[in-house]
Formats: sequence, C-alpha cells, structure tokens
Amino acid sequence: MSETQKRPAVVLLSGGMDSATVLAIAREQGFDCHALSMHYGQRHSAELDAARKVAVALGAVRHEVVSLDLSHLFHGPHGSALTDTGIEVPTSPAAAGTIPVTYVPARNTIMLSIALGWAEVIGATDIFFGANAVDYSGYPDCRPAYVNAYTTLANLATKAGVEGQSMKIHAPIIDLSKADIVKRGMELGVNFGMTVSCYQADAEGRACGKCDACRLRRQGFLDAGTIDPTRYRDA
Amino acid sequence: MSETQKRPAVVLLSGGMDSATVLAIAREQGFDCHALSMHYGQRHSAELDAARKVAVALGAVRHEVVSLDLSHLFHGPHGSALTDTGIEVPTSPAAAGTIPVTYVPARNTIMLSIALGWAEVIGATDIFFGANAVDYSGYPDCRPAYVNAYTTLANLATKAGVEGQSMKIHAPIIDLSKADIVKRGMELGVNFGMTVSCYQADAEGRACGKCDACRLRRQGFLDAGTIDPTRYRDA
Repeated sequence: MSETQKRPAVVLLSGGMDSATVLAIAREQGFDCHALSMHYGQRHSAELDAARKVAVALGAVRHEVVSLDLSHLFHGPHGSALTDTGIEVPTSPAAAGTIPVTYVPARNTIMLSIALGWAEVIGATDIFFGANAVDYSGYPDCRPAYVNAYTTLANLATKAGVEGQSMKIHAPIIDLSKADIVKRGMELGVNFGMTVSCYQADAEGRACGKCDACRLRRQGFLDAGTIDPTRYRDA
Repeated sequence: MSETQKRPAVVLLSGGMDSATVLAIAREQGFDCHALSMHYGQRHSAELDAARKVAVALGAVRHEVVSLDLSHLFHGPHGSALTDTGIEVPTSPAAAGTIPVTYVPARNTIMLSIALGWAEVIGATDIFFGANAVDYSGYPDCRPAYVNAYTTLANLATKAGVEGQSMKIHAPIIDLSKADIVKRGMELGVNFGMTVSCYQADAEGRACGKCDACRLRRQGFLDAGTIDPTRYRDA
C-alpha cells in the first residue's frame, strides 16, 4: 500500500506509555495517524511535551493539541486531584472498589468526542484510544462496556455513521497487563524514556515515583523484566 | 421544597430559542439550573451574549462558558460552515436526507461530555439538552436514538453511574414542533427577543433572515400565531 493510500485514523495521545504504545500499534496496522492531545488544565504540561516528542518519533502525520480549560468547572469536593491543586495526589492506591481522586470526570468521554468530530472532518472512521482495564486505577471510562457504548453512540452521532460507514473505537491494549504493554511497545520501537506517566511530574518530566501512575508503571517494567527508563526526581 | 433542597441540573444553553425553552422547563421542574455554554470557534459571539442574558433572565444559579477552539481542526471539505469562514452558510434548506454544511461534527457529543463531567463535579445526575427532531436541520445528534445511546454511555462513563445513581439526559423538546416550542416557552415566560438562532447573526445579534435556522424560527412564530420578536438586519 502506497503512502497516499493509507487510511487515516485519529489517535488519542496523552504523553504516557499506554497511548504511545497505541500509536505504535495504529501505525503498524497501516493507518496514517492523526494524533490528538488535550490541555485540560492538568497540573503540569510535561505530558504534553512528551506527547509532542512521541508523535514525531512514532511517525504521526499530524499532531494537534486542543485546549479546554476545565479548571474553573472541575474543582471542589467532587473535582479531581489532576485539575484542582487543592486536592493532594495520593501516594497509595485507592481502596478496592472505589474510584480514586485522580479520576477526571468524563475526561475520556470528552477526549473521544473531540476525536470523533476530528475524525469526521478528516474522513476517518477509526479512533484509537489507550484505555486499559487490567493494571489501571479503577476509572469507569476505561472498561470494555464503556468502549462498546461509545462505539454505538459514535455511529448514531455522526454523519459517517448515518451514511452507512462504521465508526470504530479501537482500544487495542484494553486487555493487556502493564508488563505486556511494555513488551508490545518495545517490540514496536516505542522509546518509553520519552513518555511521562506521573500524575505530578515536574517541568522536566521527571516522575515522583510515588503516585498510582508511577507505581503501576514501575511494576510494569519490573514484571516485563526490562530496564525502567523513567526519570525520577529523587534518583 | 426549600431553595436549599433543590436538586442541581446542568442545562446546555446555546443562546438560541430551543435551549432557552429547555432552561425554563428545567427550572419549572424544580431544578437548580447550572447553565453551560461553549465557545467553539463559531462565526459570531452574539449567541454567547444571548446565552448570558437568558441565563440571568431565567434564574440559572450559575452560568459558565467553556472555550474549546476547534477552528484549527474543523475546517476543510468536511468541516462546518459554522466554524470555517471559507464555507458559505446556505440560504436554502439542504436536500431531503442529507446533512447540511452547518452541521458541526460531534458538537452535541462534545457539549454533552463536558456537561457530564460538570454534572459529576457538582453532584448532579440530570442534564438538560435542547435537541429537537421535528423542525430541525437534519443533524444526526438530535435524534431520540442518539439521546438514548448517550444516556447508556453516561451511566457507564461516570462515577455516579458506577456507584448506582442514574444519570439522566433530558431532551424535553425533542418531539415538539417549532411552533409548540414557541408556545411552551411563552407559557414559561421566556423572552425570545433575547435569543439568537441565526447561523450568521451580526455582533448586535441581528439575524440574517435567510439561513436555515432563521427560516425554521420564523415559520415557528408564524405557525404559533404570535409576534416574532427576532431582530432582523434588513428590517
């Protein structure tokens, strides 16, 4: 298939290790990848810097960052530790069956919706999304049932769906363990040293090593039996 | 029910006549209304000015405008005439069975998603939305099947849904004709003179009188047998 015949796909890219792996998978499947990141008032912009580097390194044909400042809406007792600096990022996992304070209300739904609109504009019917329901933080919008419901919605919501094309929401790592994501990414040439997973990375992208995201990531590299390239602040 | 016991609801408010009527309905149903508007790179800001006035006039307890500039994403042959000034707003209805160029890809899905996140933050399980499937422009994301699919998604996507509360997407005017919306709004004290429906209103909110939105609105007032308070540019 020549370069010009490739089908376009929108790939949500956060700057973390999961979405970087998903971008590599989408590219391997032969898509022209249009990467999309969102600045939503998160605590730090290191992950957006990481997303920019990852997009280039993994050959995205385009990378766009949309700004949606939710910090004035998403604060208070039901807000999120990721958008409200008044809520501390926890350093131990949330109790079983509970949703942690790092949950950003409807974030994945918002990002998928923007991706859906962009897909329509560029004539894409494929959206890639790094949801993971195995070694994850217990967020509701990472589960297979959620992805299925979004697919149904996408087909009712769009011109493409109405006109008989099928919109597909791909969540290719949803069933993988963190260790398997590490292995898959490495097979596909992802440089995980570029990625930032930490909820409270510093401006240089160095991780705290203590939050839930750091804990899961560190364990993933350990279980995969490979070197952890994460730059930690206290290292 | 005392003021403090009222349940909160998020109400999408565009500044047009449909969402103003929906706000009045939500208030009549006893909700504390948190109105939400979006600046998404649309051609004019007259509708946001209108939304601000309507929110105050109809007693919303709060009104927030979120900015999400989609103009750099939503242009080109599959973009929208509402966000791309290179595409002309048509002055005659789209052919039967087709979706007009004023369709903004996934706009309702994006706005509902932000509303969903805000609802979680303020502890609301009710979202009101001015979709209308009768005298409308043929957009896919205004149909009952779409609203039902969104409700399913909302319950899978959110902490509230997971914890056993039921998220409800209310579309109280979905089955009403434009004339019935006019009548319902007037019963509830909506000042339609404040609202702006035109796709290409000028900075003072004066309507072109020619686009699809103007055509549907004008016919609605005519069919309702009431005075049309719309300010037209050429009047």
